[in-house]
Amino acid sequence: MRRPSLTLLAASLLLASGAACAADTTVPAAAVKTAEQLRDKALHDDTGYRIVESLTTEVGPRLAGSPADQRGVDWAIAKFKALGFDKVYTEPVTYPKWVRRSEHGAIVSPFPQSMVLTALGYSPGTPKGGLTAQIVRFDSLDALKAADPATVKGKIVFVDFRMHRYKDGHDYGTGSPIRVQGPVVAQAKGAVGYLLRTVGTDPHSRTPNTGVTGFRDPAKTIPAAAVSNPDADQLERALGYGKPVTVRLDLDCGIEGQYTGANVIGEITGAKHPDQVVAIGGHLDSWDPGTGAIDDGAGVAIAMAAAKLIRDLPQRPDRTIRVIAFANEEMGLWGGRAYAQKHAGEVGKFQLGTESDFGAGKVWRMSASVKPEARGAIAQIAKVLAPVGVAYDAKRPGGGGSDLSQMHGKGMAALSLTQDGTDYFDWHHTAADTLDKIDPKDMAQNVAVYAAFSYMAAQADGDFGSAPGAFADDGAGD
Amino acid sequence: MRRPSLTLLAASLLLASGAACAADTTVPAAAVKTAEQLRDKALHDDTGYRIVESLTTEVGPRLAGSPADQRGVDWAIAKFKALGFDKVYTEPVTYPKWVRRSEHGAIVSPFPQSMVLTALGYSPGTPKGGLTAQIVRFDSLDALKAADPATVKGKIVFVDFRMHRYKDGHDYGTGSPIRVQGPVVAQAKGAVGYLLRTVGTDPHSRTPNTGVTGFRDPAKTIPAAAVSNPDADQLERALGYGKPVTVRLDLDCGIEGQYTGANVIGEITGAKHPDQVVAIGGHLDSWDPGTGAIDDGAGVAIAMAAAKLIRDLPQRPDRTIRVIAFANEEMGLWGGRAYAQKHAGEVGKFQLGTESDFGAGKVWRMSASVKPEARGAIAQIAKVLAPVGVAYDAKRPGGGGSDLSQMHGKGMAALSLTQDGTDYFDWHHTAADTLDKIDPKDMAQNVAVYAAFSYMAAQADGDFGSAPGAFADDGAGD
Repeated sequence: MRRPSLTLLAASLLLASGAACAADTTVPAAAVKTAEQLRDKALHDDTGYRIVESLTTEVGPRLAGSPADQRGVDWAIAKFKALGFDKVYTEPVTYPKWVRRSEHGAIVSPFPQSMVLTALGYSPGTPKGGLTAQIVRFDSLDALKAADPATVKGKIVFVDFRMHRYKDGHDYGTGSPIRVQGPVVAQAKGAVGYLLRTVGTDPHSRTPNTGVTGFRDPAKTIPAAAVSNPDADQLERALGYGKPVTVRLDLDCGIEGQYTGANVIGEITGAKHPDQVVAIGGHLDSWDPGTGAIDDGAGVAIAMAAAKLIRDLPQRPDRTIRVIAFANEEMGLWGGRAYAQKHAGEVGKFQLGTESDFGAGKVWRMSASVKPEARGAIAQIAKVLAPVGVAYDAKRPGGGGSDLSQMHGKGMAALSLTQDGTDYFDWHHTAADTLDKIDPKDMAQNVAVYAAFSYMAAQADGDFGSAPGAFADDGAGD
Repeated sequence: MRRPSLTLLAASLLLASGAACAADTTVPAAAVKTAEQLRDKALHDDTGYRIVESLTTEVGPRLAGSPADQRGVDWAIAKFKALGFDKVYTEPVTYPKWVRRSEHGAIVSPFPQSMVLTALGYSPGTPKGGLTAQIVRFDSLDALKAADPATVKGKIVFVDFRMHRYKDGHDYGTGSPIRVQGPVVAQAKGAVGYLLRTVGTDPHSRTPNTGVTGFRDPAKTIPAAAVSNPDADQLERALGYGKPVTVRLDLDCGIEGQYTGANVIGEITGAKHPDQVVAIGGHLDSWDPGTGAIDDGAGVAIAMAAAKLIRDLPQRPDRTIRVIAFANEEMGLWGGRAYAQKHAGEVGKFQLGTESDFGAGKVWRMSASVKPEARGAIAQIAKVLAPVGVAYDAKRPGGGGSDLSQMHGKGMAALSLTQDGTDYFDWHHTAADTLDKIDPKDMAQNVAVYAAFSYMAAQADGDFGSAPGAFADDGAGD
């Protein structure tokens, strides 16, 4: 049995007995009451929806390093200020700039016709006139890994895994490595190109999901793209005739030097402990085909709106509420890694943190990675969140979300607030990630959850266990 | 009261009394029994689905006049032969060749970002570098028609009507004229370009519906395109800021001379009256973004499969079953009009006809335009179709379907077999018109309906009233 489970058990026993040690972290009754009011007010407040509407309309797609990246940063600074945040600032984030200019695909033989595909992040372009080669199909990443390089050499690998819809989106755990690791594995075996069935759950959509690859060494890359589900079906059928299937990829994309963007940060300054922070946020960048509404305009908006509700209280909270709009999450957590690197030394000052980056579906589960003595406070938070449909799973760790997982990795106490992702991978990273996918009521529930927990963490008597190297062995994150 | 209603009433009275005149058209009992067997066999036969699978896989998109047009004709000839049709031939159809090379759109100001759009049939291209102009929005075609030309001159008209889903697809009756007539009206008022909210019912899809415009005089055209529903939402929101909204259209498309394609015809030759024909069919061309599965590979496949079932009976039917795969329906019923022009003189030989061109949803309603003395035979057909869910509406005329409406216009007795089109306009004319949209069971029901009615019409004692100029005043068609 793993140590955290023992400590969880101990905490549960303590709670069950009604006893609490003097060292236990607790949320004062007045703060619980205010959190309940924040929660209820948020449910009837459209600030979050209006923020994501503003971002996706006024800036639209925000590919990291593109001209829209700077417009996104400008928007975030202006929005923080307009919302009345006490402090607004940026921190630079530098990363390789990947650009997408155009992308086309076709079956060349035996049945010539166009294919709908989208280039993957860090894919190089094809030679002028395109790359034409026979495809070789694999059911899974494991099958590709096991393949004799002779069967792959000179061909375009096609990995054909079909994702299904789940509330927790767990098929992404299979699909994502096919997109990230698959191209690297294929290149190493001598493939000249890489295709995958889109990492997306809408079997009928012709808008494939883009996303990043694991390419790191520019000398070891091959053109890589995702075809939509109907296009993958078509490739399957074409292969079913038993003749070689040849396709052409025509991608104009690639890395063009470095770019320095920014994490944009807004704070509601704590009245008692301004240097102690509750960290929430989302990422400001998005993939380019859609307008980044669910990924992750929603996350930025949820965090901004939650902090704004706390700001509008008669008094500032005891600790600082820090909202971070991260740069370039999509191409490898660049903003989150830069942030963690810069702030690792202050990890003990991070009271509790978590990022919203799984759309705008209702939060239905909470879990936490905190010190045992803070389990009581977490249970108090859970009790406030239960009426809006959030179940506390005391057996799971909290991961902190995508970028903030990096601070969690440094020792920050973290929650996971799991959203309903049933439809998320229908739209994630596609042209269809647009504002119409967000239900304003679900958005308001998210804001309620973030406002209530942030406030309670900010007012708690005691901390949640953040310290350098804490939680190093708490297993899976988000 | 209109004449057909009186004759319908008389026929109903006759049927109710159990009497039948000597001149009444009837289906012999043996033929009814065989039709029931055909119907039941069809429900467990996947021939129709296999045909549309073959067409959409092996040929894919089939834009009229494109290289795939000839591949479609070759496919149809080969498929008719493979299915054992007695006679297979083509008839030429000549029309202007419209080509689509590329299409891009963007909001230029106040919120620069790309838009997803698709050029409309017969749209000219924009000048190199695109056409940039302010948009002016109208709620409806009527509002555009009523507009002072001064408000439109030099601008890009944007007509913003939102279609909803209905079983009978009736919102297309509003949407289609916005696409067909709207560009012509806008051009006449001095607009420099035309945009419409897609004539499509999926509010979340980013794959807009293309389709033909009413442009006929190449000197009186302007670039015309459809934006997806989320893009139209975005334009609405941008306009909501109260500042001028400027967009850029960059379309490389246009008419390139003439093309001669072909209607492809397969026949099961009648044993007694080979010159008398039951005419069924679909259209072989499709729009280019999708693979033309529901529009109208399904129709071609339903008709082919129905005739194949009749062919497989121990004896040939009394009259000929003629399956017509029409050329270029999409850009103005070119195949249907050429067919009607060529065969108008033989209209009296067309026993009964109808075309399938509304997807592959289940047939739920039948109506007919036939002579009063044939109402009894229609009621016999209805009785055979009722068990598979088809309701006979004796008060509605039959239109014959898209291309065959032209033969009906010359005097051919015609049915309408109305399919469930609830989802049809989610995919119609979009990149998402692919095979996965077809339910094999629904397809089989369609084949059952077509096989049963075609056989009964072929075996009837008597005709359904086809004659030059008949049914000229039967009102609405499909």
